Amino acid sequence: MSPQRPTADLHATAAEIAALLEHHRALEALARGQDRTQRGVAVQLQQRQNAADVQRVLRGMHPADVAFVLESFEQDDRLQVWNALEPSQAAEALIEFEPTVRARLVRETGRHRLVRIASALDPDDLAWVSDDLPEDVMAEVRESLGEIDRTLLQQADAYPPQSVGRLMSLDVATVRESQSIGDVLQDLHTRAYLPEHSDRLFVVDTRNLLRGSLSLQSLVLAGPQRTVAEIMEGNPLALRPEDTAAHAARAFERYDLVSMPVVNDRGKLIGRVTVDAVVDFIRVTADKDALAMAGLSGAEDIFSSVWDSARNRSPWLLVNLITAFVATRFIGVFETTIQGFVSLATLMPIVASIGGNTGNQTVALVFRGLAFEQFTPDSRRHLLRKELIVSLLNGILWGSLAGITAGLFYRRAALGIVMMAAIILNLTIAAAVGVLVPLTLHRMGRDPAQGSSVLLTFATDSMGFFLFLCLAWLYL
Amino acid sequence: MSPQRPTADLHATAAEIAALLEHHRALEALARGQDRTQRGVAVQLQQRQNAADVQRVLRGMHPADVAFVLESFEQDDRLQVWNALEPSQAAEALIEFEPTVRARLVRETGRHRLVRIASALDPDDLAWVSDDLPEDVMAEVRESLGEIDRTLLQQADAYPPQSVGRLMSLDVATVRESQSIGDVLQDLHTRAYLPEHSDRLFVVDTRNLLRGSLSLQSLVLAGPQRTVAEIMEGNPLALRPEDTAAHAARAFERYDLVSMPVVNDRGKLIGRVTVDAVVDFIRVTADKDALAMAGLSGAEDIFSSVWDSARNRSPWLLVNLITAFVATRFIGVFETTIQGFVSLATLMPIVASIGGNTGNQTVALVFRGLAFEQFTPDSRRHLLRKELIVSLLNGILWGSLAGITAGLFYRRAALGIVMMAAIILNLTIAAAVGVLVPLTLHRMGRDPAQGSSVLLTFATDSMGFFLFLCLAWLYL
Repeated sequence: MSPQRPTADLHATAAEIAALLEHHRALEALARGQDRTQRGVAVQLQQRQNAADVQRVLRGMHPADVAFVLESFEQDDRLQVWNALEPSQAAEALIEFEPTVRARLVRETGRHRLVRIASALDPDDLAWVSDDLPEDVMAEVRESLGEIDRTLLQQADAYPPQSVGRLMSLDVATVRESQSIGDVLQDLHTRAYLPEHSDRLFVVDTRNLLRGSLSLQSLVLAGPQRTVAEIMEGNPLALRPEDTAAHAARAFERYDLVSMPVVNDRGKLIGRVTVDAVVDFIRVTADKDALAMAGLSGAEDIFSSVWDSARNRSPWLLVNLITAFVATRFIGVFETTIQGFVSLATLMPIVASIGGNTGNQTVALVFRGLAFEQFTPDSRRHLLRKELIVSLLNGILWGSLAGITAGLFYRRAALGIVMMAAIILNLTIAAAVGVLVPLTLHRMGRDPAQGSSVLLTFATDSMGFFLFLCLAWLYL
Repeated sequence: MSPQRPTADLHATAAEIAALLEHHRALEALARGQDRTQRGVAVQLQQRQNAADVQRVLRGMHPADVAFVLESFEQDDRLQVWNALEPSQAAEALIEFEPTVRARLVRETGRHRLVRIASALDPDDLAWVSDDLPEDVMAEVRESLGEIDRTLLQQADAYPPQSVGRLMSLDVATVRESQSIGDVLQDLHTRAYLPEHSDRLFVVDTRNLLRGSLSLQSLVLAGPQRTVAEIMEGNPLALRPEDTAAHAARAFERYDLVSMPVVNDRGKLIGRVTVDAVVDFIRVTADKDALAMAGLSGAEDIFSSVWDSARNRSPWLLVNLITAFVATRFIGVFETTIQGFVSLATLMPIVASIGGNTGNQTVALVFRGLAFEQFTPDSRRHLLRKELIVSLLNGILWGSLAGITAGLFYRRAALGIVMMAAIILNLTIAAAVGVLVPLTLHRMGRDPAQGSSVLLTFATDSMGFFLFLCLAWLYL
């Protein structure tokens, strides 16, 4: 009866299921070996038995853990376990999957089963995944919903994806200012229900205008004879349904919130956002950004099929190939210079490479500033000036070192000086491009994670080759 | 009286303070203009007035917002505002700063003021920042603490940095199984205190062994005559003080928790970790990783001084310079081949560049898998095999395209074939290195964010140059 430790045995659970699947395949093969008349029934019985085995292992597990275990399987095994889940457990896990995994499982699940799973979801969870479900499945699920749930779902669907309207839950517990704490507690005992992740009740007036919020903490601390108005927080922080999910995420992070009310433009309480939805959003977004910077779309994970992966990476490689061909045209122009002094070919990649590296350091810093919303016109100018000076200093330091090394190696002082000059200039360009490209993409409303590093590498490669060879052509 | 919206006007607050500082400088200059005898007093009075102005703007703001506003200033202005803060408000903000900003402010703050600020911190907050404070300041603060707080601080300091022991708060509210809900509520009214972010009370027996947890939510829903034992959750998830903060963060994310008990190895309740500490930890870690991948240490932000920045980036640039010199030695070997056919110099960077790009895509995928703990021996093998096949396919596709383009451009079919072969081979190497390097670093207990991309680029550059030139030397 010692306290549980989290996640300790999820890999063990996955291994147990993997062993079961192995065993099941053997049994199914045996069943298939029966003579023709019995085969159909034997296989079916065996499959039913197998599904029950898997269900037994996963029964009662937290949906996030079920999702984790399934995500640790390769596609085929994952699908087999997924199909063994009861529709209600499958529904709970569906919300917890990474979007990639969810999309793939949905694609591979039969229409009939999908309708049963989707029907087991709450309207607000359904709104959150509705874009991932096929239109005909959603239509059938909508049919089967009660009047009220259907209206709720329609309302949520009306908000743009990634908005607070999609993230919010409509299930809120409210109280009135005039109630005494004793009454509130009595009401709660009678109702015997609070929505999940309720850390506070919302105080509204007769027209449902949000007046304040009453944390459970102050509720249990206050004496029963006091009134809600006395102990509530007035002017609570609130979101609008049209706010972006990113905006909500920042508020939750900054103020360490568990739930936040959502009000319409007349200040009426229409819903509530909870920290679990926000944490999932933050994780998925951070994840997408990291992949986007390497030129991958979020739709790929380590278990993606070869075909999906190859297709996912192709656009980026094509862009890379084109920019590389264009950048090396700067070399093509100077082929006669290289012919005259072939060591230039050996040294030029160094100039390009150190430029790319400094530029990427600058880009990483700008990304961080953007994530923390640190930029003002002042700080932008300040950063640009500082990055230029830093790269000038680094250029002089490392450019001299590289120049002296190259000059000594090839016993030619002029070569060293050309190399030093090219490095200094290229680092300066790298700093300017590294600051301006992500800031400009961000201002244009584009995602700076996509494109910044391609454009940067393109600039530092072309300029690295061009500056070095052009200076060599002039002075050697 | 409409509900507040979060963060709407923080930039406005920053602007207001910036204007104040401007105004203050003018006033101080005026004061300095007074004749010699009055000057000292006039300047001092003016400075006191200026500090009061700044305090007025920031009074009552959430510490996270104070930290945000300060972080949006350049170093000099930031220091001026920081010095104007009351020690108690400065203490609250100190916890919320990014570690970089905190370290720099601490360095620039006088010893006397630092002691006053640190003394205003709770013992568990003090434990969290103690590594950032100078030893003599900590010694003086320890002196001034009461017996109990000093013991608490000593205990926390005994745990390794980044452990649950450092993250946890010792302030926990406990109840007994045998108590009735009515009694619990009565006790809470009498005590009139619960630690911050209390979403649950912890149930312990007479020896302080953790028996369960009682959420405030079930507390307010249950009737007063029921007992704690009836409605508590048995076997609650619990952490150990020696668990890593990362382990705690995963548990909070996965189970959407607000607080978690910490028990020692005999199961006794010794503290509590809350979601706010965990969210800060996640943000700081994600941030550090992103910078580390670009070769920056976490100790830099967009306002770092030129000198700090240049020093911070130098090691990485030196490594880059060395690997670039070594990689280009593979070109040096083939200088006579290039002399014979100078277009090789133009084309070779393309082979290296596309290799680096594919490799980085693979690295990003492996990082994601590591972050989500998706790797098992099976999935490692699976991923390696898949990446090799994907890069073979992409190599054939884009290698042919590049080869045909180059062959046509230089009207030499053999050149196109050499280029194609070199790209296919280099992409295969990139995939293998991209999978194996981060996994190996991770297994060795090193941070894969540092070093993976240097090693990868080194491999794809050297091999890109070597394969292309060697094949050209053999077949052209």
